[in-house]
Amino acid sequence: MGIEIERKFLVTSDAWMQQGEPVLLRQGYLSSHPSRVVRVRIDGTKAIMTIKGKNVGASRGEWEYPIPMEDAKEFLDKLCEQPIIEKYRRRIPYAGFVWEVDEFLGINAGLVVAEIELPSEDQAFDKPDWVGEEVTHDKRYLNSNLITHPYSSW
Amino acid sequence: MGIEIERKFLVTSDAWMQQGEPVLLRQGYLSSHPSRVVRVRIDGTKAIMTIKGKNVGASRGEWEYPIPMEDAKEFLDKLCEQPIIEKYRRRIPYAGFVWEVDEFLGINAGLVVAEIELPSEDQAFDKPDWVGEEVTHDKRYLNSNLITHPYSSW
Repeated sequence: MGIEIERKFLVTSDAWMQQGEPVLLRQGYLSSHPSRVVRVRIDGTKAIMTIKGKNVGASRGEWEYPIPMEDAKEFLDKLCEQPIIEKYRRRIPYAGFVWEVDEFLGINAGLVVAEIELPSEDQAFDKPDWVGEEVTHDKRYLNSNLITHPYSSW
Repeated sequence: MGIEIERKFLVTSDAWMQQGEPVLLRQGYLSSHPSRVVRVRIDGTKAIMTIKGKNVGASRGEWEYPIPMEDAKEFLDKLCEQPIIEKYRRRIPYAGFVWEVDEFLGINAGLVVAEIELPSEDQAFDKPDWVGEEVTHDKRYLNSNLITHPYSSW
């Protein structure tokens, strides 16, 4: 198991758009239960199944398994909760860390969030000036909740 | 993906007990939703994650991934729906097929079912004389339902 420590922010301008190559992510859930999330994701040419335990603060147990691309496609199209999440992700290095900026598509179009993964909960870090309000603890922004309560319905 | 064609029966005597070595299976569910079951199983020294799609007749799409034993133990103890299922399985060859006889423990103690996996839905097969009534389509006997509605509560 890994422990994932992630903080999530809104963005305040489009300046991120000029940075990083967009990669299309398609992801869906075999379970969106907060204590046992089972996520299927196609990230460019990689297909991954990820299990996530309960959030404790900004930390969460996380286990990843590569799976065949063909299986991932079948899960996303036929088994996962619908609709699935589609978003462009840009990976933007800044001050020693990588920011992942997710630009959502479909029923979540208009939503953009920036995430940073940290080695410990109290790790200090600098924010680019297009990074705004923190939403780490706002459950509406959980990808697993954006299926049942999409941004377009807020 | 494989297609799993399985038929399930009650047993009418203890004659199966003398046959086959019992192996302890421990299994739990990260999702017990009938359209997207995610099962974690420890079968002797093997640890497996299995995804199952919707039942269509006696057939069901099934995908299996080996996972590290340590991960499986953590899922069963901490993430899966509780309580988990524990049972002794005996594999008993008979007339060209293998019968799997599951003797449930814990809250499902007293329940014994015999299953046969078939290459096609119309495959003919012979039954040992300790195999009784078919319960393939009785959803109470789904392992994923035996957690919320255990045999001891019937």
